[in-house]
Amino acid sequence: MPLPPPAAPGLPLAEVDTPALVLELDAFERNLRTMADAIAPLGVRLRPHAKSHKCVEIARRQIAAGAVGVCCQKTAEAEVLVDGGIEDVLIANEVVGRAKLARVAALARRARVSICVDDALAVDQLDAAARAAGVRIDVLVEVNVGADRCGVEPGEPALRLAQIVSGSPNLRLAGIQAYHGAAQHIRSIEDRRAAIAAAVGKARATRDLIEEAGLACDVVTGAGTGTFMFEGASGVYTELQPGSYVFMDADYGRNSWDGLPRFEQSLFIWTTVMSAPSASRVVVDAGLKAHAFDCGPPLVVGWPGVEYARPSDEHGTLTVAPGARAPALGDKLRLVPGHCDPTVNLYDWLVGVRGERVEAVWPVGARGAFY
Amino acid sequence: MPLPPPAAPGLPLAEVDTPALVLELDAFERNLRTMADAIAPLGVRLRPHAKSHKCVEIARRQIAAGAVGVCCQKTAEAEVLVDGGIEDVLIANEVVGRAKLARVAALARRARVSICVDDALAVDQLDAAARAAGVRIDVLVEVNVGADRCGVEPGEPALRLAQIVSGSPNLRLAGIQAYHGAAQHIRSIEDRRAAIAAAVGKARATRDLIEEAGLACDVVTGAGTGTFMFEGASGVYTELQPGSYVFMDADYGRNSWDGLPRFEQSLFIWTTVMSAPSASRVVVDAGLKAHAFDCGPPLVVGWPGVEYARPSDEHGTLTVAPGARAPALGDKLRLVPGHCDPTVNLYDWLVGVRGERVEAVWPVGARGAFY
Repeated sequence: MPLPPPAAPGLPLAEVDTPALVLELDAFERNLRTMADAIAPLGVRLRPHAKSHKCVEIARRQIAAGAVGVCCQKTAEAEVLVDGGIEDVLIANEVVGRAKLARVAALARRARVSICVDDALAVDQLDAAARAAGVRIDVLVEVNVGADRCGVEPGEPALRLAQIVSGSPNLRLAGIQAYHGAAQHIRSIEDRRAAIAAAVGKARATRDLIEEAGLACDVVTGAGTGTFMFEGASGVYTELQPGSYVFMDADYGRNSWDGLPRFEQSLFIWTTVMSAPSASRVVVDAGLKAHAFDCGPPLVVGWPGVEYARPSDEHGTLTVAPGARAPALGDKLRLVPGHCDPTVNLYDWLVGVRGERVEAVWPVGARGAFY
Repeated sequence: MPLPPPAAPGLPLAEVDTPALVLELDAFERNLRTMADAIAPLGVRLRPHAKSHKCVEIARRQIAAGAVGVCCQKTAEAEVLVDGGIEDVLIANEVVGRAKLARVAALARRARVSICVDDALAVDQLDAAARAAGVRIDVLVEVNVGADRCGVEPGEPALRLAQIVSGSPNLRLAGIQAYHGAAQHIRSIEDRRAAIAAAVGKARATRDLIEEAGLACDVVTGAGTGTFMFEGASGVYTELQPGSYVFMDADYGRNSWDGLPRFEQSLFIWTTVMSAPSASRVVVDAGLKAHAFDCGPPLVVGWPGVEYARPSDEHGTLTVAPGARAPALGDKLRLVPGHCDPTVNLYDWLVGVRGERVEAVWPVGARGAFY
């Protein structure tokens, strides 16, 4: 049932059928090195977020470049990663329900699997699942440090939940997760720094409270591509979870990065002009089903004055400014996706290119693995 | 590599793992009948758009309910449909490039396959592909009747392209496609009717011009769920292409429908409350990778005062109005997707339920079949 790969190694990029998800391997590999070089002096661990790429081949390369393992968001993602040989996976998210937690516990028999909690009921269910599977699972209490999504409040509420975890015979309190997702796309560096300074304060106070209560809080994990240098230099975080840095996208491109490590755009949608009905309008074969639009339209690479104006399900309508050169029917071009993570999730295959030739085709094994 | 189905027939809906794409079969079957009853007095053919459902099982049921075949947008979709036994497929879209057109021609050896064109270069390529495969392919000239996407302009430009098709030895000019996609979501009925009246005028004039030139123009195809009654009653269109009517979505729900056939919401995202951190906020396990947001957020069914406020990649943050009852951790609930077509494309399986029990699990066989 899976659709065949859109290319084979050795094929010129020009002959790769479209739409395709293209990874420029030189830029991707430089991004891996840039992250490793940035993290090294900070004395913290790197645990990249595999929700961005959903690809065992990329997880392996992140670990080869120094990561201690990866994190992911969903039980099914963790299953794909462990099946692919990844030995240390943090489910950096809450999981509820006996059926899913039984899968988490079964996975913990095959790999080092840790998980977040933010509710006593979920702790109970997880402890029961671990007992049934005969495993002991590392648990992080998720603390709301500003994103206002999941997580218990910092301080006493986090301590109370940590005590419940600590009292659960089949669980081990590993520490806290303190991820400020809402800060990643704040445009100005100073505003991002300030948001993370507030998050660091909450994480530090919570860690201190837990340790003062006589419990261990060895791990403080969190951070994303937009802010990891701030958490990394905080002296509080022990582990960083950036994901998008391997790819980047149009939305991250709108952040300021002055003075921070710079990652390159390595991920592109490869698309064909399928209709060229007028001098001011051409239509490409990549629409809503070929990239995510929650962060706005993709950027057109290499065609000044040509903009991706409007998506429909299977079409992208591009406008051509007066006097600009328009791509012709059948031309193929690169788009920078607006938001990399949900775009990658639309594809079964990543086409890795070096220069203008396909070098590798990697399955996006955890595409659709959202349960 | 495909992920296992999230449920098996007989399972109570309450036990179906989440997120899942749920089809309420009673409502779905009523939608099939409502469409058949609406079309019958108009004397036109129904050719539903399979891009909405990407599912052979649904295409079969549409044909059993009177459709002459289906249409789709992509070569790979057509391949999945023909592989599944659908014998009459219109690729209601432009396809360029020798590799893809060779696949179209190969498919035309196995089923009745027709296709649209809007450029003489594509006609040349298609004719060559048909010759190489030893087939003759039915071709529709796509005419821009208001959507300003693909299509040649009405009148003389359409006639000129029709003449080129007609002069191509391995192609047969079947007629024109005149689809006004931009009209489908105009909210007021009178404005939708007016938009289609203008489209009908352009389609009629183009058809007449082609026939006056001595060419056949047997088929005038187009229309969608928002407007099909207007094209159907026009006396010009011979074939209608609605797709969303089998499912419906939040965006179509914002249209006015007074006096038109009413379709029911049959498609839902089944999701679990995975975090309930405060009285005013709960978080579900369906985010950007579980439904499309190009038409805004999904609607929460059955929980007055609870709204889907904010998606992130794997989370949906719901707000609870003061005084409203909030769903509890572990509760499962239905969401009406904002936009059905790109939402369906995120799932490998459709879980068909009757009442509160799973009756069938159908593969979304053409999910991701965008090339």
